[in-house]
Amino acid sequence: MRENKIKSAWRDDKVTYGGWLSIPSAFSAEVMAHQGFDWLCIDMQHGVIDYQVAVTMLQVIGTTDTMPFVRVPWNEPGIIGKMLDAGAYGVIIPLVNDREQAEAAVRACRYAPEGARSYGPTRAAYYAGSDYASHANREIACIPMIETKTAVENLEDILSVPGIDAVYVGPADLSLTLGLPPRMDHDDETFQSARIKIASTCRERGVTPGIHASATLAPKHVEAGYRMITISSDVGAMAGAASEHLRSLRDVDASGRPAYS
Amino acid sequence: MRENKIKSAWRDDKVTYGGWLSIPSAFSAEVMAHQGFDWLCIDMQHGVIDYQVAVTMLQVIGTTDTMPFVRVPWNEPGIIGKMLDAGAYGVIIPLVNDREQAEAAVRACRYAPEGARSYGPTRAAYYAGSDYASHANREIACIPMIETKTAVENLEDILSVPGIDAVYVGPADLSLTLGLPPRMDHDDETFQSARIKIASTCRERGVTPGIHASATLAPKHVEAGYRMITISSDVGAMAGAASEHLRSLRDVDASGRPAYS
Amino acid sequence: MRENKIKSAWRDDKVTYGGWLSIPSAFSAEVMAHQGFDWLCIDMQHGVIDYQVAVTMLQVIGTTDTMPFVRVPWNEPGIIGKMLDAGAYGVIIPLVNDREQAEAAVRACRYAPEGARSYGPTRAAYYAGSDYASHANREIACIPMIETKTAVENLEDILSVPGIDAVYVGPADLSLTLGLPPRMDHDDETFQSARIKIASTCRERGVTPGIHASATLAPKHVEAGYRMITISSDVGAMAGAASEHLRSLRDVDASGRPAYS
Amino acid sequence: MRENKIKSAWRDDKVTYGGWLSIPSAFSAEVMAHQGFDWLCIDMQHGVIDYQVAVTMLQVIGTTDTMPFVRVPWNEPGIIGKMLDAGAYGVIIPLVNDREQAEAAVRACRYAPEGARSYGPTRAAYYAGSDYASHANREIACIPMIETKTAVENLEDILSVPGIDAVYVGPADLSLTLGLPPRMDHDDETFQSARIKIASTCRERGVTPGIHASATLAPKHVEAGYRMITISSDVGAMAGAASEHLRSLRDVDASGRPAYS
Amino acid sequence: MRENKIKSAWRDDKVTYGGWLSIPSAFSAEVMAHQGFDWLCIDMQHGVIDYQVAVTMLQVIGTTDTMPFVRVPWNEPGIIGKMLDAGAYGVIIPLVNDREQAEAAVRACRYAPEGARSYGPTRAAYYAGSDYASHANREIACIPMIETKTAVENLEDILSVPGIDAVYVGPADLSLTLGLPPRMDHDDETFQSARIKIASTCRERGVTPGIHASATLAPKHVEAGYRMITISSDVGAMAGAASEHLRSLRDVDASGRPAYS
Amino acid sequence: MRENKIKSAWRDDKVTYGGWLSIPSAFSAEVMAHQGFDWLCIDMQHGVIDYQVAVTMLQVIGTTDTMPFVRVPWNEPGIIGKMLDAGAYGVIIPLVNDREQAEAAVRACRYAPEGARSYGPTRAAYYAGSDYASHANREIACIPMIETKTAVENLEDILSVPGIDAVYVGPADLSLTLGLPPRMDHDDETFQSARIKIASTCRERGVTPGIHASATLAPKHVEAGYRMITISSDVGAMAGAASEHLRSLRDVDASGRPAYS
Repeated sequence: MRENKIKSAWRDDKVTYGGWLSIPSAFSAEVMAHQGFDWLCIDMQHGVIDYQVAVTMLQVIGTTDTMPFVRVPWNEPGIIGKMLDAGAYGVIIPLVNDREQAEAAVRACRYAPEGARSYGPTRAAYYAGSDYASHANREIACIPMIETKTAVENLEDILSVPGIDAVYVGPADLSLTLGLPPRMDHDDETFQSARIKIASTCRERGVTPGIHASATLAPKHVEAGYRMITISSDVGAMAGAASEHLRSLRDVDASGRPAYS
Repeated sequence: MRENKIKSAWRDDKVTYGGWLSIPSAFSAEVMAHQGFDWLCIDMQHGVIDYQVAVTMLQVIGTTDTMPFVRVPWNEPGIIGKMLDAGAYGVIIPLVNDREQAEAAVRACRYAPEGARSYGPTRAAYYAGSDYASHANREIACIPMIETKTAVENLEDILSVPGIDAVYVGPADLSLTLGLPPRMDHDDETFQSARIKIASTCRERGVTPGIHASATLAPKHVEAGYRMITISSDVGAMAGAASEHLRSLRDVDASGRPAYS
Repeated sequence: MRENKIKSAWRDDKVTYGGWLSIPSAFSAEVMAHQGFDWLCIDMQHGVIDYQVAVTMLQVIGTTDTMPFVRVPWNEPGIIGKMLDAGAYGVIIPLVNDREQAEAAVRACRYAPEGARSYGPTRAAYYAGSDYASHANREIACIPMIETKTAVENLEDILSVPGIDAVYVGPADLSLTLGLPPRMDHDDETFQSARIKIASTCRERGVTPGIHASATLAPKHVEAGYRMITISSDVGAMAGAASEHLRSLRDVDASGRPAYS
Repeated sequence: MRENKIKSAWRDDKVTYGGWLSIPSAFSAEVMAHQGFDWLCIDMQHGVIDYQVAVTMLQVIGTTDTMPFVRVPWNEPGIIGKMLDAGAYGVIIPLVNDREQAEAAVRACRYAPEGARSYGPTRAAYYAGSDYASHANREIACIPMIETKTAVENLEDILSVPGIDAVYVGPADLSLTLGLPPRMDHDDETFQSARIKIASTCRERGVTPGIHASATLAPKHVEAGYRMITISSDVGAMAGAASEHLRSLRDVDASGRPAYS
Repeated sequence: MRENKIKSAWRDDKVTYGGWLSIPSAFSAEVMAHQGFDWLCIDMQHGVIDYQVAVTMLQVIGTTDTMPFVRVPWNEPGIIGKMLDAGAYGVIIPLVNDREQAEAAVRACRYAPEGARSYGPTRAAYYAGSDYASHANREIACIPMIETKTAVENLEDILSVPGIDAVYVGPADLSLTLGLPPRMDHDDETFQSARIKIASTCRERGVTPGIHASATLAPKHVEAGYRMITISSDVGAMAGAASEHLRSLRDVDASGRPAYS
Repeated sequence: MRENKIKSAWRDDKVTYGGWLSIPSAFSAEVMAHQGFDWLCIDMQHGVIDYQVAVTMLQVIGTTDTMPFVRVPWNEPGIIGKMLDAGAYGVIIPLVNDREQAEAAVRACRYAPEGARSYGPTRAAYYAGSDYASHANREIACIPMIETKTAVENLEDILSVPGIDAVYVGPADLSLTLGLPPRMDHDDETFQSARIKIASTCRERGVTPGIHASATLAPKHVEAGYRMITISSDVGAMAGAASEHLRSLRDVDASGRPAYS
């Protein structure tokens, strides 16, 4: 079976940088896959992406060495199974808030006896290899999201579930449940201590801490111990650079409307 | 009929800045349409875009004030008609090298008696208004490309065809036919004089000169008289910013392969 | 944030007329969006429509003043979140039969602390505005369906859940659970009293009553107090008018087979 | 090979009524196919429909007795061949203005020795039967459009080309080339005499006259001798009935904007 | 309502042979539908198929006498309802392990009072007939999967739920939960006795036993009493024959890489 | 630039075996790409495949060592350019019957000064490498089809055009123009001598002869000198094996209808 280079990197405590995909297109995925990210995550929760186009994105990421991850829309075994069968090497699962939900997440990612994933890696076997059945439980990354106050409180309980490879912090949702506006970062002390505590608790338990971030925020997350860090996204990169191109040539009014200069 | 604000701007000798779309997705088009470009061009020639998805891109550009242009794959009346019926307000037509080809381009863009476009603005009438038939010949921009040595030689002949609103310079193809590598700009004298001559000849004839460029090159084109300038693209902006995000955090080897740092 | 004009109208006790979309096409949605409905509902439950095409339909409805609603296939937070992130301004949720299910529906529609919706309005922010996070809990309409005998019995309990803006009566399912054939209306007394009771109970609680209906049935629903009324549908309008066109020219036999007259 | 019931009907001088499809959806095509039209035409010229979705429409029309026709975007052998291979039983070809263009149209529709169509009915053989090769030249309808002043002048010349089964009048384009606004009908004498002359000339030559029309106009076309008459369309039926539903309930202002009554 | 010929065949204890579809394409489905299978199953669980393309596959299977079945990704009422509304005549439901899950499966497949399926057979009524509401509970096949050790232990309990027409054995998942590698068959005694026990228990209870198999395994399953047997698949047939074609002409090395012979 | 291994093999007079793709699906293409063919050809002429899905098929073939070829629908520079820009390494061009048409084919495949292909390898550069511009004229295979009596007569003239790498014989069309039914092979002497003459004439001119065939016919084509031989297809392999699976279990009547045995 094709090695999951990200899990290997995590075992060596290496930092892995990822890109985020919200555009439903195999071509934009291909462009992103050629930039050199360690992994790319197809976001089926907040991205504008559903199953059928996600498969073509997984296929095209497979033309490069970048590892394909998927964020599913919900902690639901049907879609987790579909994305693994389509070749995802890691599944990010939203809103895992307690031990029971963490167990459900693992169950959906692992074949018996470690879980209850149904067998049928119809496309995955082409990407991963014909010995997929024997190694998938070991190679596939199961990555619950820690993104609420409750989840932070239940973190040790969640991490005690066998089969969790990493957790992924969603700072916007975490902000909301802490009474803060939904942002990637805050000076706020509660937020910062949660951010740091998650990383250290994970590291103690041998689980890789991950976080949704940006290139600017990455260094401070690395310092806190995070090893799975999103540093760019298709939409963010495109919108940021395109608006910068325009701004360099003229003033755009606040509404973003064309000025017909 | 909805006014073609770009043609109005050109009449006032205003510079219009455009963005270029090669990703086949209504969502990435929507993101680009919110950046404030004067016009966006859906590239059906070299972009990864065909008719059916182009329609959804035209629809979503229509949620903003940005004007929708299309580059068709070839100077062929079937596809020109289809894109106009779908709501394009300007059609960029590749490789128009002589008067006869220019006449064909105009004929495909205009209803009788000015041309031979077939009537049936099935979607366009929703975007443009129910009085489309009366005003389309005036509002729609017909934009042949000047992108070969031959076309430059035949420029006056081409511009003498009534109904051409602008021309669009393709610097890469122009380079190739001048014996240069396909690039957006060259120091080469022949190239520079062609670039300047096209602009001045057009302006003398009352035709707006346009050119495929970048934010960096735009000022020098404005100075030469160009008033339709592509300054950014979905793929270029995305790839440029995403790779910059990565580069800021680590060295990527020349192959663009992930380093699993 | 773009105002939800339907919720404003409901606050003023105005009747709002809606259209129903079952055809998976952004173009047919665009045609319907230009007819002047107050709102259009993309039916992902019984309509032939899934996520990816629904997004293009939301985009194109956004070219008009008509407000975009969605009926999700099930009371499931994953798909509710996806449709809100895609720009739906109202979500109709099937088969809400008791207080617990109503709470789940609200939880999926509202950000913390009023609910548990996950943050990431990737497309919604383009349609609604960049201040979406601050106002979404107020502007988005959460609309459970009351469509079973059980739901009618539990109506007060359901309506006591904070955050419900309207309810939507499904007459066909209500018929079935009352032992009647699945139709839009019945003379049957039980059915009629349920229909009237729902409207009056809602109005007492400050919740807008809505119902799946037709242009013919609308006046009697208005009289009963309904303020959200479906009066037409893409399939119904098309099939009705097309068959009428044929019928006006010849007798068609009962099977609907062509007669090759 | 499955019989082309329309050609059989024409041989018996029977009127055939058709529906017009502009919505790119196999589901709306299926709805229309169940209304009982003799034939349905998938409009790839002015309809919002390209090859890939047109195939699914052809497939679903094949679940009924209604015969599938296609209007191609242009008199171009590549697309004519693709649509025949996909199972179209009739091809309407725009803007055939002289004998040479008519010969090109026939050549694209017929296998050698009668034409130069390339062999490979990959999907057609499933719909039509495995003996497609032997009978296709006889069963497939080749239908050039007569829709310009020039074409009317050249009509006898055009009809002298062997292999033309019917012609299809495009009244809007015919109007434009006669100096009239693009409409389905005109009181104008030139228009009327053209309309009548086409029918009578065709009938003399044994070619079936067809025309783009409506249920209202159909009887007068039948009287003039037309035997292939479009009487309804997906978009027209849907928009007409939906707006009528709204109008029955309230006044809509001229802009078609919702009134939030 | 169109008869479910498979349920009729089961009542007469006839064997029905099915094909399995994992390729997301209406054209490959059409090819398979013309081979003469009794039924075809669109696999939305492990197949690379989601709702929107599944509908086009259901439509095209409807051009033949082959009956359309669907395997849904999970025992979830939203997707079961969507596939039935799209015209599926049988629903195979994964991982039904106990009575409660079996009851949920039936509830999702049947209208009240036998279940809680929501009414709205938007496409199904075109395929099945306008009297769908009256007969669907009888004609639609509800087919839970028996594919775990637990399910085998609970089999009698599961079969006691009214409304189950057949069960479908998933040998690969059954293998995994029995501690065996995931394969279609095993010499292993535990596996064989489970396979035989399921068939005999089902037959005693009047429920048709079904199993995922191959043409080679089919005779032994028939002998054991199975009457719903998958004997081929789109991917398996294609890959098997294509690789055989290559192998007949050259040696391919173990990696399956081209040899550029 | 990625090497075109097929052109290298041809230079060494090696036989290359190809597979033929008519199913519009990136997944079925992926399955075929893992069987070990030297090249796969996406058939956009008679296959059920248009541009947008063809791109995803090119992408996924790019995950393997198999080389991606495309047959375009017609000798038209717009679509030839689009497919090359999408990453095709060889273009098979139908119905090239004389020197002029051969020159047009080459012109569409080569950049200036060898041709007039427009520059913009938007996706190709990701698959082929960033030095695409410098090497494309050498690596891309231009492959006109010889498939009519006229083309055979003009063969030397056609082969004298510089830039033709191979020709591809279409036996079905060749049959038709020779007055034979459209089949892959015939005992007929005229057919056989044409088949042999094409191969020998090509070999004398240094052009690789290719032919549409099957695994069974391949050895005799190899013997005649053909070095580009299609030996299998997605549809043929699937339909052949699936029907064989059924036939092994029961007699199917001639109509291919299910027997409900």
